[in-house]
Amino acid sequence: MDKIATLGAMGTFSEIATKKYIEVSNKKSEITYYPTIRQVFKAIGQECNLGVVPIENTLDGFVQRTLDLLLESDLYIVNEIIIPIQFSFIANSENMSDIEKIYVQFKTQGQCYNFLDEFNQVKLITTESNSESFSQVKKDHIAEGAIIPRHLLNIKNDFSLCIDNVTDSEHNQTRFIVLAKSKGDYELDKTYKTSIIILEGVADQSGVLSKILNEFSTKDINLKSIISRPTKQELGKYYFFIDIEGHKDEEEIREALDKIRKNNLVKILGSYSL
Amino acid sequence: MDKIATLGAMGTFSEIATKKYIEVSNKKSEITYYPTIRQVFKAIGQECNLGVVPIENTLDGFVQRTLDLLLESDLYIVNEIIIPIQFSFIANSENMSDIEKIYVQFKTQGQCYNFLDEFNQVKLITTESNSESFSQVKKDHIAEGAIIPRHLLNIKNDFSLCIDNVTDSEHNQTRFIVLAKSKGDYELDKTYKTSIIILEGVADQSGVLSKILNEFSTKDINLKSIISRPTKQELGKYYFFIDIEGHKDEEEIREALDKIRKNNLVKILGSYSL
Repeated sequence: MDKIATLGAMGTFSEIATKKYIEVSNKKSEITYYPTIRQVFKAIGQECNLGVVPIENTLDGFVQRTLDLLLESDLYIVNEIIIPIQFSFIANSENMSDIEKIYVQFKTQGQCYNFLDEFNQVKLITTESNSESFSQVKKDHIAEGAIIPRHLLNIKNDFSLCIDNVTDSEHNQTRFIVLAKSKGDYELDKTYKTSIIILEGVADQSGVLSKILNEFSTKDINLKSIISRPTKQELGKYYFFIDIEGHKDEEEIREALDKIRKNNLVKILGSYSL
Repeated sequence: MDKIATLGAMGTFSEIATKKYIEVSNKKSEITYYPTIRQVFKAIGQECNLGVVPIENTLDGFVQRTLDLLLESDLYIVNEIIIPIQFSFIANSENMSDIEKIYVQFKTQGQCYNFLDEFNQVKLITTESNSESFSQVKKDHIAEGAIIPRHLLNIKNDFSLCIDNVTDSEHNQTRFIVLAKSKGDYELDKTYKTSIIILEGVADQSGVLSKILNEFSTKDINLKSIISRPTKQELGKYYFFIDIEGHKDEEEIREALDKIRKNNLVKILGSYSL
């Protein structure tokens, strides 16, 4: 049986992603909830054998905490799950102008800017999960609101004010990754993606990044994404997180990675099917 | 006289950066404070002729709001200022375990993770500026704390609890940019940097990014930084913000940019001296 570590309480998008993974994997599974992304990472290999965390959102970009923890940890990415994301707003006051506090999860803020911009002098209280935002406003008294997952609006919508959709875009999605202590299986008939990190501060050195990307492009290996994270030591020094199409054990990719490794420190996060 | 729009109230790091710019520019200047980055952008060309906003921090990476506004706006970068950043903690309670709320600016959270991780069940209240965090805890009563700029500790340190340095790293810096409606001057004896945005979703298309970087590396043009921001339309589609060494009017750079422009939509944010 899979024991899966997941962010947040029940009702969060992480739970929806985890349930989608369980459906696809078709294995008996048990979900355990953790309040922070760091605790999900810690639980894998301890109380749980798998973990599910968000990594990228259409509107707000990459989840920096997840990237930083991928750098530190020795976990592998074994799968990814993409789910649509929409938010609603609830409040214990009928008038928006009375609202003094709004509970909103740390990544949700960047997905509802246009709506939140309408409020002046309102305190935004950062929560670790969207279901925490939801439960905070239930407990409290007046003049408080929360940005909550749209599906939670159907569970209990006896608030004084409910605004159905407050997301900045209708085409909003979040990509989650499934993490494990050991690599995933390689089945020949599936389509794969491989995630790597270039562990040196390559900017500032003329052409280093273009040489790396050239190794892929000359072998017609498609780039799925590339992003930089600061090394936290110096401005202008970055790690690069690169996703390419294909499995790391395919000949072309193995050759490209071997060449890149001659001049760069590379961490392979895993190959996983799409 | 320069009228300069700046983020936050007096005492923020933005004010320090702006004062450093005034010192360097050696012109009579007047600072006007705005509560959000968006409002600083809006003020430029209206009430003010220049604006100063943060763009990158050693620990927490790029300021996503600034990048998104650079995409939308028609402003030019005319200068950059780098200043060291350290934070302290103040509270109106002697015991850390009593503290229920901590005021912390949206980018400061990612620079004081290790310290903030020690608190359990504390509400983090997101503020728009570090001086707002400072003023909030002055007004309120008990069991509240704030992460504040270290230099503010010297102004008034009669709080029940003061912890001098709570930053995750001693080598923490923030880079600010100076924005204007028109391009900066080009003086031949200075060293320049040029910032551009590649306005297409180039990932997913094999080799597009490596071809762009190749145009620079074959001409020995140094890359200072490259980062991706989601296009907000689809997962896996990004804009690329690229900084290169040199002025856009130098022959090699003009040629490289002309070649890149043949296949890509390029927005030039400006060339500015270092």
